[in-house]
Amino acid sequence: VKRVTVRVDPPYDVVVGSGALSELGALLAGRRRVAVVSQATVAEHHADAARTAAPNSELFLIGDGEPAKTLATVERLGRDLSAWGLLRDDVVLALGGGVVGDVAGFTAAVYHRGVAVVQVPTTLLAQIDAAVGGKTGVNLPEGKNLIGAFHQPIGVVADVDTLRSLPEREYRAGLGEVAKYALIAELSREHGGLAEIVEADAETIRDRDPDALTELVYGCVELKADVVARDPEERTGVRAVLNYGHTFAHAVEASGEYDDLLHGEAVAVGLVFAGQLAAALGRVDASTAEQHRQIVSLLGLSGRAPEGLEGSKLLELMRRDKKAKGGLTFVLPGRSGFERVDDPPAAALERALESVGVEG
Amino acid sequence: VKRVTVRVDPPYDVVVGSGALSELGALLAGRRRVAVVSQATVAEHHADAARTAAPNSELFLIGDGEPAKTLATVERLGRDLSAWGLLRDDVVLALGGGVVGDVAGFTAAVYHRGVAVVQVPTTLLAQIDAAVGGKTGVNLPEGKNLIGAFHQPIGVVADVDTLRSLPEREYRAGLGEVAKYALIAELSREHGGLAEIVEADAETIRDRDPDALTELVYGCVELKADVVARDPEERTGVRAVLNYGHTFAHAVEASGEYDDLLHGEAVAVGLVFAGQLAAALGRVDASTAEQHRQIVSLLGLSGRAPEGLEGSKLLELMRRDKKAKGGLTFVLPGRSGFERVDDPPAAALERALESVGVEG
Repeated sequence: VKRVTVRVDPPYDVVVGSGALSELGALLAGRRRVAVVSQATVAEHHADAARTAAPNSELFLIGDGEPAKTLATVERLGRDLSAWGLLRDDVVLALGGGVVGDVAGFTAAVYHRGVAVVQVPTTLLAQIDAAVGGKTGVNLPEGKNLIGAFHQPIGVVADVDTLRSLPEREYRAGLGEVAKYALIAELSREHGGLAEIVEADAETIRDRDPDALTELVYGCVELKADVVARDPEERTGVRAVLNYGHTFAHAVEASGEYDDLLHGEAVAVGLVFAGQLAAALGRVDASTAEQHRQIVSLLGLSGRAPEGLEGSKLLELMRRDKKAKGGLTFVLPGRSGFERVDDPPAAALERALESVGVEG
Repeated sequence: VKRVTVRVDPPYDVVVGSGALSELGALLAGRRRVAVVSQATVAEHHADAARTAAPNSELFLIGDGEPAKTLATVERLGRDLSAWGLLRDDVVLALGGGVVGDVAGFTAAVYHRGVAVVQVPTTLLAQIDAAVGGKTGVNLPEGKNLIGAFHQPIGVVADVDTLRSLPEREYRAGLGEVAKYALIAELSREHGGLAEIVEADAETIRDRDPDALTELVYGCVELKADVVARDPEERTGVRAVLNYGHTFAHAVEASGEYDDLLHGEAVAVGLVFAGQLAAALGRVDASTAEQHRQIVSLLGLSGRAPEGLEGSKLLELMRRDKKAKGGLTFVLPGRSGFERVDDPPAAALERALESVGVEG
């Protein structure tokens, strides 16, 4: 197993590798009670391993998917934790994908005004992104993640063996965020090895080879940890780079007509869009835009928007993005690194939309 | 007006005095939007003054009393703020008593993972206690304030003129927390003037004289700010002194049979109980216990438990207190200051219960 230290206050380690779950015992040593929060399908595979490490644990299940990310789930969970007797010095262990991490993490952030949480991500998306950095939250009908908190975990255990039980499409979608990290690494000329790993090992990665996955997850987490440490609560703008490709992805997701488009799939399209937009604005050259398409494609993702999306509707949805403040705002690469770009000209937007197959 | 700086990170000012509401303009200058959260009866008296200070404001009303302190209220409020277009750099202004401060403060803590909040407390209890220090939260059926966050305001405006419209009993109950501060000041030999203010000006305080109130609120806030700065998130135990008298008060409130007992009234009883318990344990002498009863009584509070409460039931409820971890725990004065005292002998507990009129 390998370790990345996230240098926030207090710092914590992300343990990455095959068999990393066995590190949980050390992390939970001396704790009085551990509430393991999970979903039925995940718990079936991994709850025993997680609970073996905890001296005194109980399993709390939440529902599947985005519909479970509500304040009602937080209330139900909070009541169950209280009835079980969880106190302020105890621990919540989030065992699952992004939804479990968000809901359990947020509940931990607000239960007794904050109890410790250990993140044990079991999807690729959660291992490289959601479980690291302390973002937690639930949705409102008005938008995703509108209620939440920054609540850094006391530790993260990313066991790549848990990825073997993921359905193929879900695993593949996670590679959309991998593409994001590879492109950020390439364009910012830091963590340079990441794009090479993807380019050299695309096949073994797609086959979920444990060694390739360990290198890959480690590389992504290292990049994310670096960014998070420089901007733990998204105050300075540094952390915005992690939203590369996401303005477009959120709009596709918010269009509501494509509920079945997975987040990572939407991010893959958003990356191709962003690369093309940056090129249309003269911020990067055409070969860089082409590299976006190439990396996405190497990882087995189409990078094209679903059929029938209207450009005007997407632009409207992008304007309503949580970070948009009424205008259109993107994080784009350029000669001096990633920057926020507000309200690009219509012609550039049109070219970028066309590049992912959306009519103006 | 007078100012107390609460030295947390970042620091903020509590403005205390007659006409302090006029300081709001400076605090809100340059803000895009201000969501004023209040209750109907408070808004009637003070919403105009608060909204005059805000460039672009809207009024959001929540229900009255403890029943409004739920996650359902937070969800309703969050949805309304989102529909109005409140964004991360905007401000929530909490205008009202403890319930408004807790609900609006907690909503601000979690809306978009945290927006700024200004506390404008309009009850005595909120001015000297709840509005300062960043504690926010809502109740679960399993207990009070079980869901919450530490979210320090960017400023607090305590206009003592707003206290003139309080119903007599509510105002009087607030004096229960004043008694707490006066006794802490006296027993810790810091902020020594506070007990003298109470003893010398009890009558003008009970008549709500603006000058006496300004001195009183200022003195209490100064003490609280000092404690909060030394332990902003209740991690070290320093802040526990602020719960003096509260173990017993929470138990009386949790007994559920006395819904109509106001918090400050319960605290007044809890202080007499705590003083007697400390004396029974030989931690303070009998005259100190007597001073507890005297200060409570000077401020117009009875310091006796409601009729018919059973000692055994109260002890059971105290064991279930959020901070109790299964045993009985009190914060009590002694020769080396306030300390945590666990599981005092039954005889001492009985004497303390008797002193407030509860049969064993």
